[in-house]
Amino acid sequence: MTKKATIGVLGASGYTGAELVRLLLRHPRAEISLLTADRRAGMQVREVFSHFSPYPLPKLVSLDGLDWAAARLDLAFCALPHGTTQTVIKKLLADAPQTKVVDLSADFRLADAEAYARWYGHAHQAPELQGEAVYGLSEIYRRDIKKARLVANPGCYTTTAELPLIPLLKAKAIETDEIVVDAKSGMTGAGRAAKEAMLFSEVSEGFNAYGVGKHRHMAELDQEFSRAAGREVVVTFTPHLVPMNRGILSTIYVRGRRGRSAQDLHGILSETYAKEPFVHVLPFGETPHTRHVRGSNMTMIGVAADRIAGRAIIVSALDNLVKGASGQAVQNMNLMLGFPEAMGLEQVALFP
Amino acid sequence: MTKKATIGVLGASGYTGAELVRLLLRHPRAEISLLTADRRAGMQVREVFSHFSPYPLPKLVSLDGLDWAAARLDLAFCALPHGTTQTVIKKLLADAPQTKVVDLSADFRLADAEAYARWYGHAHQAPELQGEAVYGLSEIYRRDIKKARLVANPGCYTTTAELPLIPLLKAKAIETDEIVVDAKSGMTGAGRAAKEAMLFSEVSEGFNAYGVGKHRHMAELDQEFSRAAGREVVVTFTPHLVPMNRGILSTIYVRGRRGRSAQDLHGILSETYAKEPFVHVLPFGETPHTRHVRGSNMTMIGVAADRIAGRAIIVSALDNLVKGASGQAVQNMNLMLGFPEAMGLEQVALFP
Amino acid sequence: MTKKATIGVLGASGYTGAELVRLLLRHPRAEISLLTADRRAGMQVREVFSHFSPYPLPKLVSLDGLDWAAARLDLAFCALPHGTTQTVIKKLLADAPQTKVVDLSADFRLADAEAYARWYGHAHQAPELQGEAVYGLSEIYRRDIKKARLVANPGCYTTTAELPLIPLLKAKAIETDEIVVDAKSGMTGAGRAAKEAMLFSEVSEGFNAYGVGKHRHMAELDQEFSRAAGREVVVTFTPHLVPMNRGILSTIYVRGRRGRSAQDLHGILSETYAKEPFVHVLPFGETPHTRHVRGSNMTMIGVAADRIAGRAIIVSALDNLVKGASGQAVQNMNLMLGFPEAMGLEQVALFP
Amino acid sequence: MTKKATIGVLGASGYTGAELVRLLLRHPRAEISLLTADRRAGMQVREVFSHFSPYPLPKLVSLDGLDWAAARLDLAFCALPHGTTQTVIKKLLADAPQTKVVDLSADFRLADAEAYARWYGHAHQAPELQGEAVYGLSEIYRRDIKKARLVANPGCYTTTAELPLIPLLKAKAIETDEIVVDAKSGMTGAGRAAKEAMLFSEVSEGFNAYGVGKHRHMAELDQEFSRAAGREVVVTFTPHLVPMNRGILSTIYVRGRRGRSAQDLHGILSETYAKEPFVHVLPFGETPHTRHVRGSNMTMIGVAADRIAGRAIIVSALDNLVKGASGQAVQNMNLMLGFPEAMGLEQVALFP
Repeated sequence: MTKKATIGVLGASGYTGAELVRLLLRHPRAEISLLTADRRAGMQVREVFSHFSPYPLPKLVSLDGLDWAAARLDLAFCALPHGTTQTVIKKLLADAPQTKVVDLSADFRLADAEAYARWYGHAHQAPELQGEAVYGLSEIYRRDIKKARLVANPGCYTTTAELPLIPLLKAKAIETDEIVVDAKSGMTGAGRAAKEAMLFSEVSEGFNAYGVGKHRHMAELDQEFSRAAGREVVVTFTPHLVPMNRGILSTIYVRGRRGRSAQDLHGILSETYAKEPFVHVLPFGETPHTRHVRGSNMTMIGVAADRIAGRAIIVSALDNLVKGASGQAVQNMNLMLGFPEAMGLEQVALFP
Repeated sequence: MTKKATIGVLGASGYTGAELVRLLLRHPRAEISLLTADRRAGMQVREVFSHFSPYPLPKLVSLDGLDWAAARLDLAFCALPHGTTQTVIKKLLADAPQTKVVDLSADFRLADAEAYARWYGHAHQAPELQGEAVYGLSEIYRRDIKKARLVANPGCYTTTAELPLIPLLKAKAIETDEIVVDAKSGMTGAGRAAKEAMLFSEVSEGFNAYGVGKHRHMAELDQEFSRAAGREVVVTFTPHLVPMNRGILSTIYVRGRRGRSAQDLHGILSETYAKEPFVHVLPFGETPHTRHVRGSNMTMIGVAADRIAGRAIIVSALDNLVKGASGQAVQNMNLMLGFPEAMGLEQVALFP
Repeated sequence: MTKKATIGVLGASGYTGAELVRLLLRHPRAEISLLTADRRAGMQVREVFSHFSPYPLPKLVSLDGLDWAAARLDLAFCALPHGTTQTVIKKLLADAPQTKVVDLSADFRLADAEAYARWYGHAHQAPELQGEAVYGLSEIYRRDIKKARLVANPGCYTTTAELPLIPLLKAKAIETDEIVVDAKSGMTGAGRAAKEAMLFSEVSEGFNAYGVGKHRHMAELDQEFSRAAGREVVVTFTPHLVPMNRGILSTIYVRGRRGRSAQDLHGILSETYAKEPFVHVLPFGETPHTRHVRGSNMTMIGVAADRIAGRAIIVSALDNLVKGASGQAVQNMNLMLGFPEAMGLEQVALFP
Repeated sequence: MTKKATIGVLGASGYTGAELVRLLLRHPRAEISLLTADRRAGMQVREVFSHFSPYPLPKLVSLDGLDWAAARLDLAFCALPHGTTQTVIKKLLADAPQTKVVDLSADFRLADAEAYARWYGHAHQAPELQGEAVYGLSEIYRRDIKKARLVANPGCYTTTAELPLIPLLKAKAIETDEIVVDAKSGMTGAGRAAKEAMLFSEVSEGFNAYGVGKHRHMAELDQEFSRAAGREVVVTFTPHLVPMNRGILSTIYVRGRRGRSAQDLHGILSETYAKEPFVHVLPFGETPHTRHVRGSNMTMIGVAADRIAGRAIIVSALDNLVKGASGQAVQNMNLMLGFPEAMGLEQVALFP
């Protein structure tokens, strides 16, 4: 049997951390050897996530004083809060240069130091790594990810918008100045921190927008859309909360450029993703449900014509904890460690 | 004590019918004297809706062979399926000319015979009444509703879009050619018919768009927006389903005209609705949740600036069964029968 | 017009506090003149509960340094945490002897000082008031409540179990040593405090028991069942959490005494509650849903025969925030202030 | 590579059928070669279950006129409605004697012809097979299942009750005449047939008991408990519906026999299931959540002491579509075809 890779999950008491553990427990080439969770250090994983009760796992430890060289990790997933992350990774990579890192925070997503400072209100603490980090949208940056030491896993909202829009912008097939992304997310996107606004009774049986006009995921969209289009692109983006655990769906309003019809756009996406295991373009006119990707690493994309000539409505759906976070992180790990890209991610959606 | 009005509910076994019964049971000037439900004729209301078990109500009867003159209704609410409705109301108004009607179906919402035929695929069966019917958006058409014999209660989606947009279009404050209405509805909007797609297990824990590019509520929007703007207005509209029972929220993307800012738009709406009991404009930058209007006849509207200069994001929320259907119907009844407009509709939202 | 009573709500930032405000806003004889919320003192109610945004209400103030005599309250509802409550009420009643109090906490529910100390682990801080307080199960203790200065509103679980069982125990119609109460509650019963275990993502799409074998509501059940039976009664009680906002349903397993059949038990309950506005006994063999009492002050009770001869299954359902808390509190206020018992509580259940 | 087994799923348009397809798609030794669905015959699976859209699968065909010998199935899963099933399996086994069958209906669960006739109201159509069928509770009847040609997969409710109770009854550790099983199920247990009572709006935000005093799963419980105890055992059983898709939880009230304490009962279960991959006994006093087994084949069991001496409360939880139906069916297939018992069932629970 092939030797397994030694894997660490930093920040294992949050939802993306737990999702990494779930996937890695069944990954044939990965072995979980380190789990950190500062506030829960010293506890068994089962005390923090009862669904892991039947499985043997290392105890949760603190990041403080960890000897990265001694840990001998082949790869570390970093699911820590924004800000802390850049300091932790800087030290990790300095102490254990052979370890690779997939970071699930927003810390290394923006390549531009100024953009980072503008959106986050402070200078980046590891600017040299900021330059080195590869943006981990697997289908688009696959080649770079394979060679990377540090991959910045994309946000969940941004993945739903970028997978359909980047190919269209690259093909110069849509107008760049009137794109509207109306996005809807399940509640796990808000994380596991105990906040009044996230209580069941505050959330159930209701729907709302939030961060209207000002959401940090916009910076990531600006960067990637401008890169793809070769010119500055600024989109309108509004996130909403849906009373469900998992799933993001973005409804995207675009206008075809130079006479491109909705069917032309559908054609471009179908061709781009024809052989991708984790992007499925539905037949023209059909649009996806989040429930049809739940628990899987699949993204489903649909394209329909608007009744206003020249306009199209694109709908994309994925599971925010899988393709929107931990699944794409494992996909990136597979690329970085030379494993088959889909390994450990074959699970079919859990419906209903 | 003042004599109560004699009221009938045609189609009392659906959700809008039940909601009418709920409201009328506590209306100080209304007395329910007739309840029809063809498939359930002969049954007690409690066999169809157990929550009415503690209350005395007339038995459900069939529409067939009803003697409208003998029924001596002051007002009939018609909550029947599209198509059937126009024939029933035609006969009712012919046999009982003193009875007033609030129709909750789509049958009389379109004033234009051709538009009706185009959207519904057949000629209208009561074209003379189609001309007579008053569109029942209470806040906008109050004066006409007071004098009307037949009121066409607006759709739920359309009410969420029209309440914020009509005043802006009337004021020529927004561009008319790039309005996007991204609407999200709870499941009661789909009615009580047993359909696989509406089963709990098909709906729970998921989110999806439907009718993308082609939804009949568009006809109503076209009519009302064009009326308000004084020119043809066609908007992009996409409905979605939220796993909740009640509530509609529309996220509306507009561009200010001639330099009107988002704050200007907020000012227009605040002023328009300052004294309305059932439209509440939130402070600038705040946006509503459907859960904050649940069970009440309230509409909440918020306006925020988009980060793209000149663009605004308007969010409106209401309970689709109350202000989006039966509550507005009772509001119209109050106007038509000369009762105080808010009578029986004072209930505060049920949160959580 | 009759003068309105001046009412205070102590602890207005929790769910039972909000529910009191919702009911009192529409109560014809009540005027809210004081709202306290220590952590939110100085804020508008709308900043804490957006659904009250359209209504004028006094600002939230702190309990600290309140002058009870100057407040001139006719009645105060106390929706404060356990423990704090007894000290606050002691001072309130000392400073403003004309003010009446309905307490929604557990502090005054146990009449016995020893039982209190045993279940709560400390001596009661206001033992003289503990003796004076009347247990506020309105249908059972109506006569005493009318004359009371301090009423201890029952718990939500206990109300679902006591309304069906007290009449049966009084009639000596069931065995007292093998009663099982399997209770299921919606999430608002857990309150509004931000706890990880109450997050939407922790609760949705799942079901669990808690406090198995040891729940404080047991003390209240013991007291009331023993009182009713005239001998010590100890029941088995297990609470569970249902992923819904409102509602409690108890499934109660009993054995008839001296040949009493399930139908006999149904007969006793039907007769006992025949004229009660807020307890509705369903036809024999039918059992209630929580959704059929949502938002109303109604309790529904059903009785069915078990297939094991001599045993019966009783199911009772109510809205934990209304009849299980704030609705029953208003019902008790009505009794204490001489208003019609059902005033302000007429609202029909909100279904769906 | 080892040759894969050729598998058919009869009744692939229901939830248990879909769950079989989900599991089999990723089973290393199974190949789906036949999918039947009478009302949907001729359709692609993706038209019936969109989440299978990305995967190649055979078209749905009708059962009518199927040539079982030509189908050359190694094993058929039968997920057809009760009644139809016995006729279909009789023909299948006659025409293709080498094919093995796992039946997910109730048709072959009762070994006794009289009991069958009493509970189902008609004589069994394949009494010789009724005698041959092995009851498929994998952990209990493993040895017989390995040799069986026809396995009757247990019901979901019954599996939750039998896994904890059978070992205790066999050990004569609990009294047999006062067992209460209070069971709560998610909505997928009701199947995919379009019924008004199963609509989202009828189910969401509510909780109810059903079939009180009379549910067909009782027959199965009687059979298995009596077998285990060596004497007639009749338990009280009440099913309830929880507004969630997946999961069953049973709260079971028992009394220890001859001084057996709750801890003794916990000891028996811990020992019995120590090496089972799909039954996990929690530490004494802890009880499971359905959400911690969602999507997995795991059963979790907890035991706690009641406050009444000598009584214990046992709580068991599983996913009704996996261990309660299709997962256990695959587990049985593995036993019958000589595959490792856990093959294809390793998936960790999907939480949240």
